[in-house]
Amino acid sequence: MSVKIISKTCTGPVNIAVIKYWGKRDEKLILPINASLSGTLDQQQLRAKTTVAASAGFTKDRMWLNGQEQSLDNPRLQNVLKEIRRRARKRKSGCEDDLDMLTWRVHICSENNFPTAAGLASSAAGLACLVFSLSKLFNVDGDISDIARQGSGSACRSVYGGFVEWEMGKEKDGSDSVARQVASENHWPEMRVLILVVSADKKHVGSTAGMQTSVKTSPLLKHRAEKIVPERMQAMIEAIQKKDFESFADLTMKDSNQFHSVCLDTYPPISYMTDISHKIVRMVHAINAHFKKSVLAYTFDAGPNACLYLLEDHVPLVLGFINHFFPYDVNNEQYIRGLLSEPQKPEQKLLNDIPINPQPVGALQYIIHTKVGPGPQLLEEEHSLLDVSGMPTSLINA
Amino acid sequence: MSVKIISKTCTGPVNIAVIKYWGKRDEKLILPINASLSGTLDQQQLRAKTTVAASAGFTKDRMWLNGQEQSLDNPRLQNVLKEIRRRARKRKSGCEDDLDMLTWRVHICSENNFPTAAGLASSAAGLACLVFSLSKLFNVDGDISDIARQGSGSACRSVYGGFVEWEMGKEKDGSDSVARQVASENHWPEMRVLILVVSADKKHVGSTAGMQTSVKTSPLLKHRAEKIVPERMQAMIEAIQKKDFESFADLTMKDSNQFHSVCLDTYPPISYMTDISHKIVRMVHAINAHFKKSVLAYTFDAGPNACLYLLEDHVPLVLGFINHFFPYDVNNEQYIRGLLSEPQKPEQKLLNDIPINPQPVGALQYIIHTKVGPGPQLLEEEHSLLDVSGMPTSLINA
Repeated sequence: MSVKIISKTCTGPVNIAVIKYWGKRDEKLILPINASLSGTLDQQQLRAKTTVAASAGFTKDRMWLNGQEQSLDNPRLQNVLKEIRRRARKRKSGCEDDLDMLTWRVHICSENNFPTAAGLASSAAGLACLVFSLSKLFNVDGDISDIARQGSGSACRSVYGGFVEWEMGKEKDGSDSVARQVASENHWPEMRVLILVVSADKKHVGSTAGMQTSVKTSPLLKHRAEKIVPERMQAMIEAIQKKDFESFADLTMKDSNQFHSVCLDTYPPISYMTDISHKIVRMVHAINAHFKKSVLAYTFDAGPNACLYLLEDHVPLVLGFINHFFPYDVNNEQYIRGLLSEPQKPEQKLLNDIPINPQPVGALQYIIHTKVGPGPQLLEEEHSLLDVSGMPTSLINA
Repeated sequence: MSVKIISKTCTGPVNIAVIKYWGKRDEKLILPINASLSGTLDQQQLRAKTTVAASAGFTKDRMWLNGQEQSLDNPRLQNVLKEIRRRARKRKSGCEDDLDMLTWRVHICSENNFPTAAGLASSAAGLACLVFSLSKLFNVDGDISDIARQGSGSACRSVYGGFVEWEMGKEKDGSDSVARQVASENHWPEMRVLILVVSADKKHVGSTAGMQTSVKTSPLLKHRAEKIVPERMQAMIEAIQKKDFESFADLTMKDSNQFHSVCLDTYPPISYMTDISHKIVRMVHAINAHFKKSVLAYTFDAGPNACLYLLEDHVPLVLGFINHFFPYDVNNEQYIRGLLSEPQKPEQKLLNDIPINPQPVGALQYIIHTKVGPGPQLLEEEHSLLDVSGMPTSLINA
């Protein structure tokens, strides 16, 4: 006789901050020293996919990430599981069958459709997806962003689509440090995103350790968090509500620069951007100078990859510029991935105005073309990553 | 009958700031938004050399720099000439012969023994040397740092040897924005300097334009200048007076980082450091981690070259580390220039502890080994760069 297994499978999106989160005021609850704001990216191009299953027949909690079993000992994951169960119990909703389910062990299986730890916010997508999946499994309603936050700070912004604010909050227990949708994915449908993957190397300093050191050592970070970000958040929300791309772009670029500025003011200093990252920055400013307004915005997370926000109309020409300054191996059919768009070669005299030398082939690995998209999605059972016995359908033998 | 020519020939030193100057409150008078402090480097390795001559027979003011004639129209040079003449007249000292001399035209010939505009503070050495030479020519006594300041801000620190403070000053006319010797070159004779020349490329943004943009656009610069630098100046002066190398090193590195941090917070952002610069930073922190204290300090000016301050005892081992991580072409006999010191190869297990990959040959162009030295020097007539007719003894035909 087989023991019943209940499971849910969901996908969760990546988000790319335009006002950056850097620094915690509470390490355990993951409470930030300033508010932040991001665009949620479409899951067609980048997503985590997670199946969570519970069964009286499981003997222990287990987790598989990208085909390899991982420990669940991580205190952040434990906090997430505890908090989901606590909330399910509190609501007395239990699961669809039985309150007993809250005592069952869980199996978690998750995979990304993009490389992890490459500065593409994989943990945010993964944790948001996990928390969303668990909330479906245990029938937890309402805002779950604070649970995702405890799994991986910026994951809280990935529980909603469109443009999402992570409120700093004031309470010691973190109850008001939650995500809030500023505008849905339908508000500004022309918004596009190009991710320029510079390198998939491991970071020299992880973001958790990096932001701890910044909080301890950077005299500029405190000033940024207290004085500068509050004003920028307000201006950014207004720019998004008004669909004012120029203000959106300038604020995005200034805030990315200031985040990396604070990393450099950290002791020892942290440098995530590389020479290629800085060449992309110069290209973007040169393109904007040509248009006499900001039509393109860069932002860099804790890694060298550039994320460019722009409107649909400018995609072909911007891809043309990128192809000129960062030429690709013509044998690389996978150079531009995601949404289709034909690069438009810029006129020569326009290129001559831009004082940057084209880089050698290979400076960029590839480009992902995507857009702003919805929050996590519940999938049909047929998409499950776990089989009828609760084991992964595909495993990488280590 | 030949017309009399009076001339003086002097040398002037480079200085390398350990608390950085970045931002003017008065563009014309060159008044800074914060105080700064530097070490003056020995002129055996790096110096400007200038001959100034005055004669009733000269028909116009002329200047030759590194063998090529240059315009003297530059308003900063005009200010320097005007101010020197004004001061000479005021003191009624005139020249040794005749007050008439103040109406005579001047010929100026100057050359550096190192590449200009390579981020090696050539303008500071050049202007300090020019002002010192003119002061000798016109018998101007007393502090001349404010005149040098009007020629090129940080040049004021090159008019003294040892460790030199440039006081910010408060007066509108700049009369209190002068250089002051904190300690002479004999105070801390063990201090050594290694300059790692990463690249002699032209800067992407000159420092005059760069600091203007920073003052206009960086919200962090204002905070730095008002709140952070005053405390650091005090701590740095104390560290030098006490010969406390660890404090000196930590403050030097933190202030270099913060200067580059503010450059990145500028809009559009300015990035002077390259990937190689950041690798040097990591190497220095790794070496200090090995010694469990700061034995080595980096500082970067508006360019990618690293300037390392360290004590004499550590030079051989540090050169050994540098040779390991930044290997040189064995055919390059000029790789380490200046003071003699035999690199000491670090033990393999020590190298294994440092998580940096050795760079390809050529990452560094060369290394200059020097020390803290005296202020400008007056030379004998035989060293003149102008001949008996007041024309350069050697000219490059353009």
